[in-house]
Amino acid sequence: MRTQVAIIGAGPAGLLLGQLLYKAGIDAIILERHTGDYVLGRIRAGILEQVSIDLMDEVGVGQRMHKEGLIHGGFDMLFKGQRHRIDMNELTGGKHVMVYGQTELTRDLMEARQAAGLTTIYEAGNVTVHDYDSAKPRVRYEKDGLNGKEVHEIECDFIAGCDGFHGVCRASVPHSAIREYEKVYPFGWLGVLSETPPVHHELIYANSPRGFALCSQRSHTRSRYYLQVPLTDKVQDWSDEAFWQELRLRLDPEARAHLVTGPSIEKSIAPLRSFVTEPMRFGRMFLAGDAAHIVPPTGAKGLNLAATDVKYLSSAFIEYYREKSEAGIAHYSERCLRRVWRAERFSWWFTGLMHRFPENGEIGQKLQEAELDYLINSEAGSRSVAENYVGLPLNFGE
Amino acid sequence: MRTQVAIIGAGPAGLLLGQLLYKAGIDAIILERHTGDYVLGRIRAGILEQVSIDLMDEVGVGQRMHKEGLIHGGFDMLFKGQRHRIDMNELTGGKHVMVYGQTELTRDLMEARQAAGLTTIYEAGNVTVHDYDSAKPRVRYEKDGLNGKEVHEIECDFIAGCDGFHGVCRASVPHSAIREYEKVYPFGWLGVLSETPPVHHELIYANSPRGFALCSQRSHTRSRYYLQVPLTDKVQDWSDEAFWQELRLRLDPEARAHLVTGPSIEKSIAPLRSFVTEPMRFGRMFLAGDAAHIVPPTGAKGLNLAATDVKYLSSAFIEYYREKSEAGIAHYSERCLRRVWRAERFSWWFTGLMHRFPENGEIGQKLQEAELDYLINSEAGSRSVAENYVGLPLNFGE
Repeated sequence: MRTQVAIIGAGPAGLLLGQLLYKAGIDAIILERHTGDYVLGRIRAGILEQVSIDLMDEVGVGQRMHKEGLIHGGFDMLFKGQRHRIDMNELTGGKHVMVYGQTELTRDLMEARQAAGLTTIYEAGNVTVHDYDSAKPRVRYEKDGLNGKEVHEIECDFIAGCDGFHGVCRASVPHSAIREYEKVYPFGWLGVLSETPPVHHELIYANSPRGFALCSQRSHTRSRYYLQVPLTDKVQDWSDEAFWQELRLRLDPEARAHLVTGPSIEKSIAPLRSFVTEPMRFGRMFLAGDAAHIVPPTGAKGLNLAATDVKYLSSAFIEYYREKSEAGIAHYSERCLRRVWRAERFSWWFTGLMHRFPENGEIGQKLQEAELDYLINSEAGSRSVAENYVGLPLNFGE
Repeated sequence: MRTQVAIIGAGPAGLLLGQLLYKAGIDAIILERHTGDYVLGRIRAGILEQVSIDLMDEVGVGQRMHKEGLIHGGFDMLFKGQRHRIDMNELTGGKHVMVYGQTELTRDLMEARQAAGLTTIYEAGNVTVHDYDSAKPRVRYEKDGLNGKEVHEIECDFIAGCDGFHGVCRASVPHSAIREYEKVYPFGWLGVLSETPPVHHELIYANSPRGFALCSQRSHTRSRYYLQVPLTDKVQDWSDEAFWQELRLRLDPEARAHLVTGPSIEKSIAPLRSFVTEPMRFGRMFLAGDAAHIVPPTGAKGLNLAATDVKYLSSAFIEYYREKSEAGIAHYSERCLRRVWRAERFSWWFTGLMHRFPENGEIGQKLQEAELDYLINSEAGSRSVAENYVGLPLNFGE
């Protein structure tokens, strides 16, 4: 088999890249080791920046998103028992974010890909990448055939590693060629999804004496809540009842009064991690999204960074095929990383601002409160939070 | 002896308070355990915020300051080999700071106090404070008399503890009545004062791979430079030559080319500390300035916080004597602390931004670079730095 771009991973990064390339007339195959249903079953992010919304429109899959997505022009920060609204819309000159689950976005992209008759190979086992330092990279995978497991090979011009943090692409790079930066946080997020109306029409980020809580949502009838929990906690230790009780204790009286509880339809604990790979290009193999970087979820930058990566990557491929220019390819890594580090900085900072860190002592707690107090009382401080939350412009700092 | 306010400490806080009370017709005595020359010999801060400039004018001692002080409308941040100017003036709607040494300010206040014939008792030994929980506080001290050491007692309405971090006032408060917050940084500042023209007309805050450096100044002919050094370093290990050589290595080529070196006229290593006492009032005893709080020197908030404390304190005393109201006294601590914590927050943050912290790992370094990159490229980010540097308004957040 031959294609121009072999995309590893059918998550939102891979699917969005596939769609961008399809619109540009560039041939691509997506390999995914799981089934489509498995991919759709992963509950992830739910907040889209304008750049991500624009990309969905650009590839012509924005219809349902615009119909069902909820525009949020602000969010609340709760600390010392008081809620303070960050009016993103006003602070950024009219920008906003959209609540639209990653699952929904993935479904839209999958359906568009299927409708266009594009090739996605699900349940591709034991994927390996080869010769990406040469002009003729190859990808091999196993797939059940008539005679049991069969090994297949795809020849391509480029490999796009959209295969997530645990993917094969980054893992294939020799240690000497890659630099990894990592910070692990001393807590996790216990998340619950429930078919209940959200406690508030916008998100509430709560810094409570009992730890961080986030009141998020996926729709008017589906809520997503998170609690900061010790890394030693296990999901099975948390009954739904215990979760709701703890959430109530971390909210203000008004939110507590409005909270509608119900059975969890998903419950999980995720560790928080800051992680960046440098570079993001290795010859003719490119990393994009979680394969190259992880942000702690505070601030919802993960999916949006993946979207920008593949936007830059598709532009680079389009330049290569249309204009015979390798400039976009040459600059891909640097271009992505500048934006990645800014989002990493914001996510790290926002995590530090809103969570409890007993290891920083009482003065750490007081400095955190002073920072929150400064931010809500300073127009510059509030605007700084808002402009990062809605996403810095693509040409920021250029 | 009897006075209305017994002020402990003849540093800038005590002297400024004395002058504010004198202007209001309130009687005060200052006790100082050192000589006046000793106090003047201490080399400290040199950057005045507008609130401090205004206070010097208010007490009628601003003439020399306005003649010799240098107005600075901006400063440079140097990182990754590039200097970036924070245009405070433009970013804050016309605000600035003034370079005027604490020594000079202290001298002006001392001279004014002497000219007005006000009582300052220097070399007051073994000062103790008594009965500040009652309506009749007393202060005792020893002073050499005709018959050797004599014990004196001052009866007063109030005690103002302007006696610094190691002073007797805070130390006299029972542990159960006070809460102290402290953070010690894993490095110190090696400072050199020299009779050389400053390397640049404004300050340069440098975050170099070899550690932080600050190019400050006291006048057009007197420079003040600092280097981040390990806490284990001793002053005697640092020859002038070694200091200048290390400073050069932490600057950009342009600054390096303009650096004029000369013999040090003062050289010392100071640890960096964040420290806050809560409350700042104990009955009829009040803490002000370093007696109540210490900031790391990055951002030059220490002297300016002391000035605001005594402004609030003099207002409280004036209210008490003129309007028979204890409201100012009752709110003194809360009013100061809100401002103190904001300045502590900024000083801690600015210290974290500009110094090297190998213990935060490579990702810590990258996040720091990303923060600097964000700040200089974002108007909101730059303005946030600028408005804190020039000093938040006295009514901030009210």
